[in-house]
Formats: sequence, C-alpha cells, structure tokens
Amino acid sequence: MKDIYAHIERHLDESLEMLMKLVRQPSVSAQNLGFDKAPGLVKSALEGVGMKVEIVQVPNGGKPTVFGTATAGPRASARGKQHTLLWYTHYDVQPPEPLELWETPPFEPVRKGDRIFGRGMSDDKGNVAARLAAMRAFQEVRGGLPSNIKFFVEGEEEIGSPNLPALVKQRGRDFKADVCIWEGGGRNLSGDPVMYLGLKGILTLKLRVRRLTGDAHSSYGTILPSATWRLVHALSTIRGDDGRVLIDGFYDAIRPATKAEDDALAALPDETEEWKKTFGTKELMGGKGLPLRKRHLFDPTATINGIISGYNGAGMKTVLPAEASAGMDFRLVPEQRPDDILRKLRAHLDKNGFKDIEIEGATGVIPARTPIESPWVKLVADTATEIYGRKPVIQPSMAGTGPMYDFAVTLGMPIATSGVDHPSHKIHAPNENITVEDFLLGAKQAALIMERFGEQGPG
Amino acid sequence: MKDIYAHIERHLDESLEMLMKLVRQPSVSAQNLGFDKAPGLVKSALEGVGMKVEIVQVPNGGKPTVFGTATAGPRASARGKQHTLLWYTHYDVQPPEPLELWETPPFEPVRKGDRIFGRGMSDDKGNVAARLAAMRAFQEVRGGLPSNIKFFVEGEEEIGSPNLPALVKQRGRDFKADVCIWEGGGRNLSGDPVMYLGLKGILTLKLRVRRLTGDAHSSYGTILPSATWRLVHALSTIRGDDGRVLIDGFYDAIRPATKAEDDALAALPDETEEWKKTFGTKELMGGKGLPLRKRHLFDPTATINGIISGYNGAGMKTVLPAEASAGMDFRLVPEQRPDDILRKLRAHLDKNGFKDIEIEGATGVIPARTPIESPWVKLVADTATEIYGRKPVIQPSMAGTGPMYDFAVTLGMPIATSGVDHPSHKIHAPNENITVEDFLLGAKQAALIMERFGEQGPG
Repeated sequence: MKDIYAHIERHLDESLEMLMKLVRQPSVSAQNLGFDKAPGLVKSALEGVGMKVEIVQVPNGGKPTVFGTATAGPRASARGKQHTLLWYTHYDVQPPEPLELWETPPFEPVRKGDRIFGRGMSDDKGNVAARLAAMRAFQEVRGGLPSNIKFFVEGEEEIGSPNLPALVKQRGRDFKADVCIWEGGGRNLSGDPVMYLGLKGILTLKLRVRRLTGDAHSSYGTILPSATWRLVHALSTIRGDDGRVLIDGFYDAIRPATKAEDDALAALPDETEEWKKTFGTKELMGGKGLPLRKRHLFDPTATINGIISGYNGAGMKTVLPAEASAGMDFRLVPEQRPDDILRKLRAHLDKNGFKDIEIEGATGVIPARTPIESPWVKLVADTATEIYGRKPVIQPSMAGTGPMYDFAVTLGMPIATSGVDHPSHKIHAPNENITVEDFLLGAKQAALIMERFGEQGPG
Repeated sequence: MKDIYAHIERHLDESLEMLMKLVRQPSVSAQNLGFDKAPGLVKSALEGVGMKVEIVQVPNGGKPTVFGTATAGPRASARGKQHTLLWYTHYDVQPPEPLELWETPPFEPVRKGDRIFGRGMSDDKGNVAARLAAMRAFQEVRGGLPSNIKFFVEGEEEIGSPNLPALVKQRGRDFKADVCIWEGGGRNLSGDPVMYLGLKGILTLKLRVRRLTGDAHSSYGTILPSATWRLVHALSTIRGDDGRVLIDGFYDAIRPATKAEDDALAALPDETEEWKKTFGTKELMGGKGLPLRKRHLFDPTATINGIISGYNGAGMKTVLPAEASAGMDFRLVPEQRPDDILRKLRAHLDKNGFKDIEIEGATGVIPARTPIESPWVKLVADTATEIYGRKPVIQPSMAGTGPMYDFAVTLGMPIATSGVDHPSHKIHAPNENITVEDFLLGAKQAALIMERFGEQGPG
C-alpha cells in the first residue's frame, strides 16, 4: 500500500483544496440553503475520480441525494467476481448559527497551522473528500479500483433523513452493496481509533392540549380546566424521575445485549468524570463506569425537548393558559419500532384519562446494530489497527440516532465505520474544523479498506 | 335627597368633563407612564370639592397615593360626634394594549350616544369622579358634607398594590375611618345592583430548576438529570387533576363559610352556562349551580400561569434542556396567609425530594371578607335598593384579589361596595367605556351612602 499512501500524501494539498471548495458552498438542510448548487458540485467531485454519477430526486421534494458508482479496475477484475462496497456520507451541514461565536466565517475555510476551519470541514464533507482521495490514488497509481464502489451522499442527514426510508423503498436495489462504511469515525481523545456499529432509533412528537378558547384570568382556576395542569399530569405519568419509561410494553421489544456486545462495552473507556465535567452536574442517572455506560448506549429514553404554556415574561401575569404543548423524543434500541411506541404512547394516554392530549407531527427512525461478530467488522477493525497503530475501540452502538436501519436491515448490509473525526473538530458547533493529520489517516484507512475488501470480499 | 340628585343631574356635563380630563392624563402603573402629572391632577380634583389633599410618598419608591380629607359640614356637626367614611379608589389604569383593537384612542375620550370611551373611564376614574360629584352636591346645595370623608386614591392597584401593606403600616392611623366603600360596584347583566364584601388573597411565585451548565444533546437523556422532568414531577405533586391542592396543611387555616355567607351564595344567579360559553369549554370543575359557585368564590386555587423549558420553535430540536421554570399563583381565602402557604410549599417540595427546585420572587396579598351581618353592609344594601329600585345581589367574596385586608383587618373597617360598573364597560380591555346612566346612578348612590351614614353612623 506504500504506493497508494505516497500518492495520497503527494496530492494532499489538492485534496484539501477540493474539500475547501465543497465547504465554500453552503448546504444547510435545516435552512434550505445552497441546494441549487451543492448537488452539482458534489457530482463533479465524484466524477473527478471516475464515477458515474446521478443526482437522485428524493420523495416528497426532499433535498437530492448524489449517488455515484464505479466498477473495479482490470487488476481486481482478473481475480473473478467483484464485490461492492457502499460509502454512506452526506453533503448537508448543520446551521452555522450562532455566527458571532465563529472566529472565521463558516463558509470561508481558513487554515491555521494543522487545522482548517469551516462548517462541514469534518462532518461530513471531510469524510467525502478523504474517501475520494483514496479512490483517486487507486485510479492514478494502479489504473483502477480494487472493488466496485457505490457512493451515497445524502442531502438531509442533518434534519433526520425524513425521506430516506421512502427513497430506499423506491430505489433500494440501486444502492444495495455487500458491505457499507458509515459516514464517520476516527479517533477519540486518547488517540485510539473508534468504530461504532449501531445507532439508536428515535420517535419525536409534540403533545398538545387546548381546553379553552382563550386564556382566562387565573381567578377562574377554581372551576376552569387547565391545559397546563393537564399536560403536566400527563407527562408525569410517562417517565419516572429515575428515567424509567412508564408506558405499558415500552421495553417489550428490546433484545438483550449479546455477550459480544457486553464484552465490547466492558472494554470501552470510562467517561463518567468527563461527562460530569462537560455537563456541569455532580449526579448522573445510573451511577458510574460500566453500568452507566451500558445504560447510555443500550437503554432507550424519554426526554422532554421543550415545554411551553402561558406567560413566561418578566414579572408575573396571573393568567390561566388556554393551551400547552411539549416536544418529546424517545431514543429507541433494537428491536423497538417508532410506530409501535407511538401506538403504545397513545394507549397509555387514553388509559390514564388523557384523551384530550393530542399527539402531533410524530416521526421516527428505526434503531439498528451490526453484530460485532460480523467478518466485515473484523476486516475494518484490522485496517484501523494497521493505520493508527492501535486496536480500535468498538462501540456496539452510539447513543445518537441515524438512518442506519434503512441500509443495515432494509438493504441487508453489515455496516462498520471509519473516518476523519476527532473530538476537537467541534462538529455541529461554531469553529468546526479538521486537522490535516486526521484527514490523512482517514484517507489512508479508506484506501486500505478498499484494498482488503477487494482481496477478501465480504467474508 | 331630591335637592342633591337634582344638583348631580344639573352638573352632569361638568362632572363628565372632569372625568374625561382625568382619563386624558395617562397613568399606567405597569408601564410607569404619566406619574409626573397624574397625582397633581387628582389632587386638584379632590381640592375642587373642598378637601385638604396630600400627595403621599409610598415606601420603596412606589407611585404616590393621593389622599384627601374633609370634615362634616355645620348641619351634620350640629348632630354631635361625627363619624368618618373612607372612599378607597385608584387613579392608575391597566395598559391600553393591544392598541389596534381600540376604535378611538384610549387617552382621548370620545362620547358616542350614552357611552364615553377611554382607558380608566370606568375602572377606576369613573368611580373617583362619581364620588366627587356627590360630594360637590352636598357642598353646594347644603353648605357642607353629611359626614367626615377620607378619600384614598391609590397609584398601584393595577400592579397588585405591592407597597400598600408597608404604607398602611407607616401611615395607617391617618387613613383609618369607621367604614369604607371599596373601589367599585354597580350593576350585573340583569341590571341588579351588585355588592361584594371580600377579595381573595394571593401568593405568586416562580419555580425554577437548573441541573446542567448548558443544554445537552437529547441522546444523553439516558444518564443526565433533566430540569424539565424534575419540574414536571414537582408540579404534578402540587395539585391533583381535580383541582385539589396536595400541599400538607394547605386547607388548614380556612374558616368554614358562615350561614349568612352560604345563604348569600344561594341567592346569587347561576352563571354556569355563561362561564362555559365565555371560555369555550363543555366541562367545569365542580359541576354546576350552587356547588360550582361556592367553589369559585370560596375555594383557594393553585394555577400554573406559565411554564417554559427548552426548544419550542417550529419543528423539533432534540435537546435536553438545562433549565426549566414555571410561574404559579395560589388564590387564598380567609384565613389563609401567603407567607404560611409559601412555607408549606417549600416544605412540600423538600419532603417530596425536590430540594433542587428553587422558589423565586414570592409575593402575596392576604384575603379579607367583611361579615354580611355587619350593619354597614345593611346600610349600603338599603341605599342600593333605593337607588336601583331592586335589592342588591350580595357576593360574600369575589374570586379575584385586592388589597382589602390592609383596610378591613389591619385598620379594622367594615367594607362594602358601590360604584359605576357594568359588564359592558369592558374594564381592562380595549374600548373601555362608561354609560352616562351608570355614572349618574353611581354618583347618586354615593351621595345617599354619605347621607345615611351621616344620619345612622357606623351602626
């Protein structure tokens, strides 16, 4: 692989220039900003490494997906039947706000020493560019790729991929591959490479109750029904103060962790003190160490994202509000399903006398995990050890959510991760950046994954 | 009294002109608007009927009270020891907003037919002007007043009289009289004169909880304490869904209604259907008719005025909020005390494990009721029957709150009401107005009250 790595290093400045070009083009899905030009720019970048590229229209008028395909080169083809690797990434980015906290403008990349700053520099345009650098090296040094590649670059990941399940239903056969590498990965604070094999699902919704045609003077608190009290009482039945969700059957579908998952969990670093410090709290629910970690990665949640009713300005206003609402999310773990949890929530509210509480705008993502025992996981883990010089830390799941299910289960692909990430890159936050070192490591691992997959196949 | 009534009618236009002059001068206590000129204008009006007037500085830099005194005329003095009647009123008004709903500018009074529109035209400058018209009639027709009069015109009633208890503590002896007529009264929708003999107390406060230094991603709902869930759970222990307050000892100090109060309550009109229609609800807590009315006028409440936490904008934001707060009021009935209820609320939160919930900005007003059996109530009720040609409807208490306690209990005066009010006057709302008829009736009853009190004394 020395020839490939040398090419990646020799052409580093060009690769970074290409990444900065992608970042200069805003593509903020939450603000519908930049989607006139961004898909075309991504298409050009993929075509630049010899891919055939389609700008895929997404159901319900969603932001387009850019989808590229390339077949294995002649050397690989000489080995017989070629397998296919899917890169999943996305070109949309988080809103840059609050702008006043950026030291340089978010869409004008600036390099300072080993770091280049800009929105999307790491998440996820950095991963797109690193994988393209690896593909270019194979094309130019060896005259072709070591395996077939499909490159899926989504435009709605940062708003929860609302149209991805419908797109996969419609066009899934085109995206299907033997294995998949997810959007990111990289190193943790200790410098160990990190892999995660799953994402939680989610159900988000609003609870709303309206009991009067207008706000009333609070002296009518004697006799008028209060939307606010109704909502408070309904919410208080949903989750205990210890975090336990009180909806009948909420935990029924959860499969127990496998031994391999528990072992992987036991091997993860203890982040108890770091979490306490980061969030400024002396107490965490679930104690510390392994039990805390298990709870964080393997347990579902019920969280109130927001609640509002009545007067909340300066001083007091003695009003009895007509309406109250709360935003909630439930993080789900295998094999919970958002539609099932939604039904159970409705039944729970009805059973407890809260038929007047309406559920609005429910939307969901199904959880997914690739088994640790998968040969694909071993293949990718070995490349991490080789590139980073340390064994990777393997998280059976992240605590967060993503549309992995559509690829892992609907399309039936084992999914592992590799990438350019590092905690200092400030993804989603002001002053997002990437280090040149992480970019190089990510590109090299992407190249090694292609090479090993070309040699060994899906296992 | 025909001579007095004739004078009031003959000088009606001048009285209304004086009222409009008071209304032209804004005096919005919530907005600190107009207090450079308003007290002086009120002082001139009181001096116009021969009173000795002081602009009283209020503790804590509150808006001044205008306080006038006048002694009984020679005819009354000839009868021997003279008793004193206190008029309680206020010259501050509610904010005029929303301005776009006014058909004529709030501080430019306009007469249309029998109605004159403007902020404060009824509440409470109309009552000030009607009482002055009655006093002027005695001065000019009979050469003096039938009793001693004290005229207390407050400048902070519309913001909850925050400095009145301190002022009464400081200067109470000066304001003390034998009996008192409260700020308003008048007719109900059926045209019956209405008297109320009491006001509820109140305790207002904010509950606040902060558990993290900043908002967290909601995937940490597994392990991070949630301010929002804490507040929801704490609130849910304070009041049942049936309106019952669950704080230990909350109801202990309440004295049962007297037979006279219950009889008065039974005689009140049934407003069940009107309340349902006004507030657009099919259900009221407490059924209908007498039990509903008793609950409304005699029961204390716990009401959430507002609650806020986290993200409440469009769409969803999967955040775990660092902080949550709620505004609450407790309406109190005799002999509950706001400071006692505050202590009990704190003890309740502590006992239920909510030491992290902070109570902020607590402020209170003590409830008060004048006994129906008081001879003063009978005297005033008889004047209502005589002026309006119908027996008055007597409410032992209103559901609302006011600083009656400081006069009724601290200064030990029986308090009844009379005034110029009518439900069509839209007090506190856009297009506040007064009918000339109600002004005349209010002025005549004020005159008759003075006359009868001069003759009969405090009973």
